[in-house]
Amino acid sequence: MKKGPRIKQVIVTPIAVVDPPLLNAAGLHAPYALRTILEIITDDNICGISEIPGNLATNEALIKAGRLIIGKDPFQLNQIRELLESNFGKENASDRGIAPWDQRKLVHIFSSIEVACLDIIGKIVNRPVVDLLGGRFRDLVPFAAYLFYKPKGAGGKLEFGIDEKATGWENARQASAMNPVELVEQAKAMCKEFGFKSIKLKGGVFEPQAEVDTMFALRQAFGPDVPLRIDPNGVWKLETAIKFGRMLKPIIEYLEDPVRGQDDMAYVRNELGVLLATNMCTTSFDDIPNSIRVHSEDIILSDHHFWGGLHASTKLASICQTFGRELSMHSNSHLGISLAAMVHLGAAIPNLKYALDTHYPWQSDEVIVGGRLKFEDGSVQVPAGPGLGVELDRDKLAALHQNYLDCGLTKRDDEVEMQKIEPGWKFELVRW
Amino acid sequence: MKKGPRIKQVIVTPIAVVDPPLLNAAGLHAPYALRTILEIITDDNICGISEIPGNLATNEALIKAGRLIIGKDPFQLNQIRELLESNFGKENASDRGIAPWDQRKLVHIFSSIEVACLDIIGKIVNRPVVDLLGGRFRDLVPFAAYLFYKPKGAGGKLEFGIDEKATGWENARQASAMNPVELVEQAKAMCKEFGFKSIKLKGGVFEPQAEVDTMFALRQAFGPDVPLRIDPNGVWKLETAIKFGRMLKPIIEYLEDPVRGQDDMAYVRNELGVLLATNMCTTSFDDIPNSIRVHSEDIILSDHHFWGGLHASTKLASICQTFGRELSMHSNSHLGISLAAMVHLGAAIPNLKYALDTHYPWQSDEVIVGGRLKFEDGSVQVPAGPGLGVELDRDKLAALHQNYLDCGLTKRDDEVEMQKIEPGWKFELVRW
Repeated sequence: MKKGPRIKQVIVTPIAVVDPPLLNAAGLHAPYALRTILEIITDDNICGISEIPGNLATNEALIKAGRLIIGKDPFQLNQIRELLESNFGKENASDRGIAPWDQRKLVHIFSSIEVACLDIIGKIVNRPVVDLLGGRFRDLVPFAAYLFYKPKGAGGKLEFGIDEKATGWENARQASAMNPVELVEQAKAMCKEFGFKSIKLKGGVFEPQAEVDTMFALRQAFGPDVPLRIDPNGVWKLETAIKFGRMLKPIIEYLEDPVRGQDDMAYVRNELGVLLATNMCTTSFDDIPNSIRVHSEDIILSDHHFWGGLHASTKLASICQTFGRELSMHSNSHLGISLAAMVHLGAAIPNLKYALDTHYPWQSDEVIVGGRLKFEDGSVQVPAGPGLGVELDRDKLAALHQNYLDCGLTKRDDEVEMQKIEPGWKFELVRW
Repeated sequence: MKKGPRIKQVIVTPIAVVDPPLLNAAGLHAPYALRTILEIITDDNICGISEIPGNLATNEALIKAGRLIIGKDPFQLNQIRELLESNFGKENASDRGIAPWDQRKLVHIFSSIEVACLDIIGKIVNRPVVDLLGGRFRDLVPFAAYLFYKPKGAGGKLEFGIDEKATGWENARQASAMNPVELVEQAKAMCKEFGFKSIKLKGGVFEPQAEVDTMFALRQAFGPDVPLRIDPNGVWKLETAIKFGRMLKPIIEYLEDPVRGQDDMAYVRNELGVLLATNMCTTSFDDIPNSIRVHSEDIILSDHHFWGGLHASTKLASICQTFGRELSMHSNSHLGISLAAMVHLGAAIPNLKYALDTHYPWQSDEVIVGGRLKFEDGSVQVPAGPGLGVELDRDKLAALHQNYLDCGLTKRDDEVEMQKIEPGWKFELVRW
């Protein structure tokens, strides 16, 4: 048996992509969302790629990790994970941080390396990544419309300006969406453009009654056949979650992270009798035993960037299946490489009862050859071709890297962005 | 991307291998142990193989399953499992049966097909199976000496006769081992021949005090550095397990299946404060939630033939890791194809704290090219070469299939065998 390829080179490229001013419990999206593109190249010049949330500290650690894996066999993912763990130290669930998004380093680093290695392996064996995860259960992976409250503006160089000639979804992407009427317009434009069949509202922005009013306006506009979800990112008090959860109960598919912490989630779930989902209280394998014990949620919104890759996510799916939980997916602002990885994973998971989250419609940039991936009736087809089935467009990568250098951002900080439009605004763990 | 290979042919060959008259709670091993060899051949003539416990009903179902998978892509293991489940119906934990060994059909069938497909995939991508499971944590997989009470005789055509010229382990394999002195001799010969560093006694044969005496004799002979285990296969009453478990506590590494059922196991574990292992009370993913709830055991003795293959076993390993349990492996009488599969799996599992069980030293036949696999200091090296790294010896396969036709056995029935030497003997679920 001939010796397999070895990792020759690792390239870490931070990029900044235009992002609209989306409101959330932690503040406001900056004009650019940061992502990091990883390229791993073997000694026989096979290149694997991946994409993770951008952050200066993560990037520095990823560069260090890249040096450690030079000379390694991309098939030896177990050994690579052990090597990274021994160099970076095991992380605890508390390293996740208090923001709605995950701030652990090791899971991001290992995820990016694993996905790029699976891309390489897929290219070596001439198979799509889904076939390396046990093979496909479906060809089309369904996503949900992800609504945001937002002021006018499309972000990026436009600096909150808008394109007066924009129509359709592009218009809605730039338009103000601060009340039920405007949110219904956003939902209609997004569902028309992408064909989504489920709708999620990012909540935790306004006082709960205003958000509940938006949910009822959506229900009235879309009827009972379009599942609705709301995610206040844990900023509701227990009694707020009970009060407004009761109102929402007749019209929601599930309630995502109404409160913080597994025990409070379990309490709300028990009181309300509605399905709960999370990407905040059960976010690592260390959190699983207590999640099962207290039954803090019904649906775990996995994110391969945070759970340590695609293999780890299939293992999480097995745990969910074994313990009678459902698995769906969380997202941050992202481009097509992350979307492709999510789709391969989504195609390989046996039970996919709920359409996945994605911010993808909110971004307009792309870094892959052929431009932005298409949604058909709200779903994305598993990319054809070996590996992830998407390739880097190097001109676009260079341009987006220049954006990164120009924009001056080094990490996501929605609080600072919010203070630019609302001086003195403070992120609060529990607000209402 | 070119279309991958498709399954062209499936060959199911029942074989019978010489087996010594080993005593256990369910009776006595027959002169032959039944195994079934599966060959799956693709349209580009790549052949994958696997081995499972032999049983007429399983073989018939496997032949039916073989017809269903003709034309399928061997990479699409998720689809193949769905296809088999939809044709054979989902099995319940109760389908396992009351014998110490598992009698479910679907898990055996899917395990055999999955392992043969992984052998094919490994050959296509020129990689050992361990690399398809995330890659190797170790090159050598440690096994334990597996001691049995037995009358004289080596089984098979010898019909309980013995080879008067035999020496060393071969002599011990044929010799009587009915008391502590003879068991110590067996252990010494086995450890000398194979280099095992842990010892397990198959108990549940004699009244508990006799078996405890054997354990203390082993302790005296081998000292405190050789971990000892005993497996009464659940035939002890609760009070018996407490009484003799207390005596054994100072000298055992773990106690395997002292009693039946997760609740009783949890009670014994709690009362004794010794580590418990099982391959009887937690034997399927359906059993896991209650196992975690009541903490019925510390170590799950997995068996890829019963848990539905190698990928399923790595998922079980993740569950164990997540919930603070250990994973080791169970065995039945087997040849080198099953051993190779166990070794690939054992090499890919992160935490392997306990040496695995194997009956392999008790068998003398082999069906693979190059003859029997070697143990080095109690461990087996991951076979070199793509796939499982072992190939069928067709002459030996033909001879062992002839044994099957000649011996007339169609399923394992240790009670019937026992009645041949002890008329009227009855298998009892709980004996002492």
